[in-house]
Amino acid sequence: MTAASSTTGSVTLVGGGPGAWDLMTIRGQRALQQADVILTDHLGPAHELDELCDTASKEIIDVSKLPYGRQVTQEKTNELIVTHALAGRKVVRLKGGDPYVFGRGFEELTVCREHGIPCEVVPGVTSAVSVPAAAGVPITQRGLVHSFTVVSGHLPPGHPSSLVDWRAVAQSGGTISVIMGVKNAPAIAQALQEVLPADTPAAVIQEGTTEAQRAVRCTLGTLAATMAEHSIGAPAVYVIGEVAGL
Amino acid sequence: MTAASSTTGSVTLVGGGPGAWDLMTIRGQRALQQADVILTDHLGPAHELDELCDTASKEIIDVSKLPYGRQVTQEKTNELIVTHALAGRKVVRLKGGDPYVFGRGFEELTVCREHGIPCEVVPGVTSAVSVPAAAGVPITQRGLVHSFTVVSGHLPPGHPSSLVDWRAVAQSGGTISVIMGVKNAPAIAQALQEVLPADTPAAVIQEGTTEAQRAVRCTLGTLAATMAEHSIGAPAVYVIGEVAGL
Repeated sequence: MTAASSTTGSVTLVGGGPGAWDLMTIRGQRALQQADVILTDHLGPAHELDELCDTASKEIIDVSKLPYGRQVTQEKTNELIVTHALAGRKVVRLKGGDPYVFGRGFEELTVCREHGIPCEVVPGVTSAVSVPAAAGVPITQRGLVHSFTVVSGHLPPGHPSSLVDWRAVAQSGGTISVIMGVKNAPAIAQALQEVLPADTPAAVIQEGTTEAQRAVRCTLGTLAATMAEHSIGAPAVYVIGEVAGL
Repeated sequence: MTAASSTTGSVTLVGGGPGAWDLMTIRGQRALQQADVILTDHLGPAHELDELCDTASKEIIDVSKLPYGRQVTQEKTNELIVTHALAGRKVVRLKGGDPYVFGRGFEELTVCREHGIPCEVVPGVTSAVSVPAAAGVPITQRGLVHSFTVVSGHLPPGHPSSLVDWRAVAQSGGTISVIMGVKNAPAIAQALQEVLPADTPAAVIQEGTTEAQRAVRCTLGTLAATMAEHSIGAPAVYVIGEVAGL
């Protein structure tokens, strides 16, 4: 642990929202405008940063973790955050969605605390809710569903490291919203069908809220085939439940 | 159904976020600034509207549904939305959190469509995630939890109209975030303890993200007593799971 010097900067973990630049919060935009350094990945409003702040006056560092592609390790990202903040700079770590929804936000906050660096978290509009909404699917509806579960699909059901009881998720009675689950969609759909009928409505949305948005309605039984047929790639969200049929 | 005339206005359902005015989206603020009429309730940034737009130039209508207090019925709210829009005005319906997270957003969208009124939905930062975050609780954490369930606590477990399988929610392995559940906290905590240990970490946050925020850490077993002891009232969120112990 390093004691913060009088010239220590600060870190703000900003939730960039689902993709469209103007779905970021006002507080998040202000943090970007005041930043010296912005560490961004490929999600959220990364491609529209110019709409949010004067990027020419800032150092922009790409720390993308592309699925099955180029990866900046979390350790390297942490190191960059700490190094720039300890050099006295105002650092923004810009993330897609919300920093605490599968965003490793708490890990980065913890690293900052260990180094005595002031760190603020600015929540964002989560893709798990707003991406279905952009395709016309409300995650809840009075009289139809009183709960919803958001699941990371980065591990298939039954994987030794999985922390999700997919049977219980299916039994909960609520809408299911899966993010980071493109590759494992066939296994996830199969697991959910052990409880839910194959004709349960579903919807898949790729790059929701952006100009590139593509959305397809289907059923739980046809989910995997539909995604393959339409060549759905990350980032995508799929939502399963009666609300997908509204 | 009434055909829209050439002077038909428009309706925007705006998610106001958890409370602090600057946790609204940029798109939501623009809608407020362009509005002729704002229908607002007591949640979200309702008390800080002056920070977001020139309220003096607009008609502000309070359509609050206060818990156990004054209620504007949904039918009356729908009627106001339609009447003002058909009179050619730009109407914003400002809600707390996100319009589709227990916000009756889809009901209001449907009413607009039935009357041929253009209606846009602007997502918001949901209180279910951002209010715990404001109290230092990340809703997910890598290696600890890969899912979370958001539940409306407006009905107790076992109520004939309840659509939630609380046992399955408890078994899912994910964080549980309950909103609108102050009154039913004792029954909900009891139901969850049929599956989860009494020492499961929990946190309760009232009026999260606002200056009036109060947060208490406890356990599932002490949740109800803690809320009573601290006189927790609506709006409040409680979150149950290992993340509440971080």
